[in-house]
Amino acid sequence: MPLIDETHNPALTSWVSSANGHADFPIQNLPLGVFSTRNEAPRGGVAIGDWVLDLAKAGRSGLLTGDALDAAIAASGRTLNPLLALGAGPRRALRRRLSQLLANGSDDQGIVEGLLYHAADCTLHLPTTIGGYTDFYAGIHHALNVGRQFRPDNPLLPNYKHVPIGYHGRASSVRVTGAEVRRPNGQRKAPDAEVPTFGPSQRLDLELELGIWIGPGNELGTPIAIGEADSHIAGLCLLNDWSARDLQAWEYQPLGPFLAKNFLTTVSPWIITAEALAPFRTRQPARAADDPKPLPYLWDETDQERGAYGIELSVLIRTPRMREDKQAPHRLGTGPATNLYWTAAQLVAHHTCNGCDLNPGDLLGTGTISTPDDSGVGSLLELTRGGKAPITLPNGETRTFLADGDELILAGRAVADGYVSIGFGNCRGQVTPALNV
Amino acid sequence: MPLIDETHNPALTSWVSSANGHADFPIQNLPLGVFSTRNEAPRGGVAIGDWVLDLAKAGRSGLLTGDALDAAIAASGRTLNPLLALGAGPRRALRRRLSQLLANGSDDQGIVEGLLYHAADCTLHLPTTIGGYTDFYAGIHHALNVGRQFRPDNPLLPNYKHVPIGYHGRASSVRVTGAEVRRPNGQRKAPDAEVPTFGPSQRLDLELELGIWIGPGNELGTPIAIGEADSHIAGLCLLNDWSARDLQAWEYQPLGPFLAKNFLTTVSPWIITAEALAPFRTRQPARAADDPKPLPYLWDETDQERGAYGIELSVLIRTPRMREDKQAPHRLGTGPATNLYWTAAQLVAHHTCNGCDLNPGDLLGTGTISTPDDSGVGSLLELTRGGKAPITLPNGETRTFLADGDELILAGRAVADGYVSIGFGNCRGQVTPALNV
Repeated sequence: MPLIDETHNPALTSWVSSANGHADFPIQNLPLGVFSTRNEAPRGGVAIGDWVLDLAKAGRSGLLTGDALDAAIAASGRTLNPLLALGAGPRRALRRRLSQLLANGSDDQGIVEGLLYHAADCTLHLPTTIGGYTDFYAGIHHALNVGRQFRPDNPLLPNYKHVPIGYHGRASSVRVTGAEVRRPNGQRKAPDAEVPTFGPSQRLDLELELGIWIGPGNELGTPIAIGEADSHIAGLCLLNDWSARDLQAWEYQPLGPFLAKNFLTTVSPWIITAEALAPFRTRQPARAADDPKPLPYLWDETDQERGAYGIELSVLIRTPRMREDKQAPHRLGTGPATNLYWTAAQLVAHHTCNGCDLNPGDLLGTGTISTPDDSGVGSLLELTRGGKAPITLPNGETRTFLADGDELILAGRAVADGYVSIGFGNCRGQVTPALNV
Repeated sequence: MPLIDETHNPALTSWVSSANGHADFPIQNLPLGVFSTRNEAPRGGVAIGDWVLDLAKAGRSGLLTGDALDAAIAASGRTLNPLLALGAGPRRALRRRLSQLLANGSDDQGIVEGLLYHAADCTLHLPTTIGGYTDFYAGIHHALNVGRQFRPDNPLLPNYKHVPIGYHGRASSVRVTGAEVRRPNGQRKAPDAEVPTFGPSQRLDLELELGIWIGPGNELGTPIAIGEADSHIAGLCLLNDWSARDLQAWEYQPLGPFLAKNFLTTVSPWIITAEALAPFRTRQPARAADDPKPLPYLWDETDQERGAYGIELSVLIRTPRMREDKQAPHRLGTGPATNLYWTAAQLVAHHTCNGCDLNPGDLLGTGTISTPDDSGVGSLLELTRGGKAPITLPNGETRTFLADGDELILAGRAVADGYVSIGFGNCRGQVTPALNV
């Protein structure tokens, strides 16, 4: 598990004044991403307050040595895959050195100022070239909420508490925050219809998830043991697994979701590193007395003690009318990331137990994270009972699923007593009308 | 649809004498791959008889100009993604020029001889960096054969004849012929067992499929119309979707196959190009009178007339005892690739109809291709009735699923009256024991 060190000191403040008290990016965060500016190609960067520090320039600044320099050099290109391949050591060294350089009292403020760009002038890109994207189903209340709609007396399938259920998603259609959410066309068949029709999805939904960035990963044929799995988790992001429920219902038997999901997945652009998240690690919620104990390849006491994350996750919506009326987005709910039945380490151990390889820059989704009640559910499918119970927004508008023009925002905030909270940045998307067919 | 031109002339022979009468690689084939030799890095190549022509050297030879030269340059690196991105024009120009250069009577034989390597001295690699791998379920007799084991009266699910069913596979574990088939460990639960156990799969199976190499593909948000889909199919290969049936049965609800499949997928290393396959295009088998007509986005008359492939597909097995006794592999069956309910173009149109992007070098699997009877089924699950009816090999050995040491070989051969048959090359793998756990 990553260490808590001086970089997490709550007394630490930065000479980058916007960082102090920043909701997302105080000096205790220092997340990794890829950005570009008007005249320069994409390269690695670190968010600090309202600024982005250029890791390519930092590598040439003379301020870094050893592992920290190696990390910056590995982060100087278009993707962070080379950095994630290095594992936690160089990443931590870079974090420590940047924390010193950005802290109040740094002797090198003058040089470091030359490495900073206004975030408003930066375009953010996917942090890695995603070779593989796998989406899990570890949010147990989501599985229960959805299962109850189909099997009221027996909502969880028999394998759920034994197997971390997952499937392969489409890596090529993962995009960072802000990407257009084009309503997909597809086949859908109403339960009472004889034949399917083709056209715009009428049941477009969100799914609130955490994304897990992998590094360094394993060779094909060499499983990652549960006790080692945490060291292959480079960091987290927010992930919206946009879902067309009508397409999904018609296509998913017997091989799982496909076109209902692969038209777009949106992630927040910053990798909130395992190191930054160290103070927010918490105990995995105890299993119920009648829950099965997982098989040994999924079980590690240290992972149970510290494998969960103290992250508050929220979903907000802003309709076109709310935008016209200059109303702020409306919070649909907030819930904790501890509503996951499996830890991130268990997902990694399971994914590789058959020898499947994970590679630097791969992305795992946790599955939708929901609360047992309606206070923080991660999909409209749950909140509206499969579209049967519309929700009413504060301005009187109602929704079952997403309407064209709706903007959907995911937010995440790591919180722990005695530590400065850190945020995940934006994960938003606005629905645009389907292409004419 | 690709044209039939002088490169397909059955009278054409090559000064590369092993090409004439070669089962796989006569001068009418000229498949594309990536190879390396002892002292040189991987680069594009073309198989001709028992030789491989170096496309990187060909690009520097002065023998190519225009589109053919552009194609060779695009094929000079470690992957053919840049070549596939160019589409059919440059690929065809290269084919025509190489056909001239390799034909008997070429004036340039002396120079071209310097571009050739003995295939026995070459290591073959994946022809592309596979960004996305999707596996379909288009083999209708496979779907029926498997469905009957679970639902004797109603073997096909209601969506089957409307939706080309598919799911995302794992691109990172695709390997070329010869890769070790390490028996995967995983969770499996016998129907009468209370809880699952973890250990080696006891029901390791093959799946005989065709692979479809994509190029150039589409941008996210821009579907490929059915009438254009064929131009995005760069070529075909053989594909073995190794499957652990016991893992699959326990894990696949509700999100589809995952660890049961992602430990390995084997492909034949040569891209049998769309151009080479032109003479073997044939009519898609007529649908039954009571089959639904596909929705318009999946329907194109030209595709129905020429969208299928006249390819004979075979599965062969060689057990350790057969190897010891110097016996040749035993043919388990042979069947035609026309046993697919959907054409390759329909798979492409469906995959992109929601805006999902396909990219150069992506791989699609057709799904297991089986005959209605036992003469050419593509999996042991079918041939042994779910493991209940062992098969007996000529030497008296029996099998339900694959045993350690078994070698499995897929073969493919395109056949059409009046044309020289072309083959797909090797797609083989040998099962090795599971890792100790």
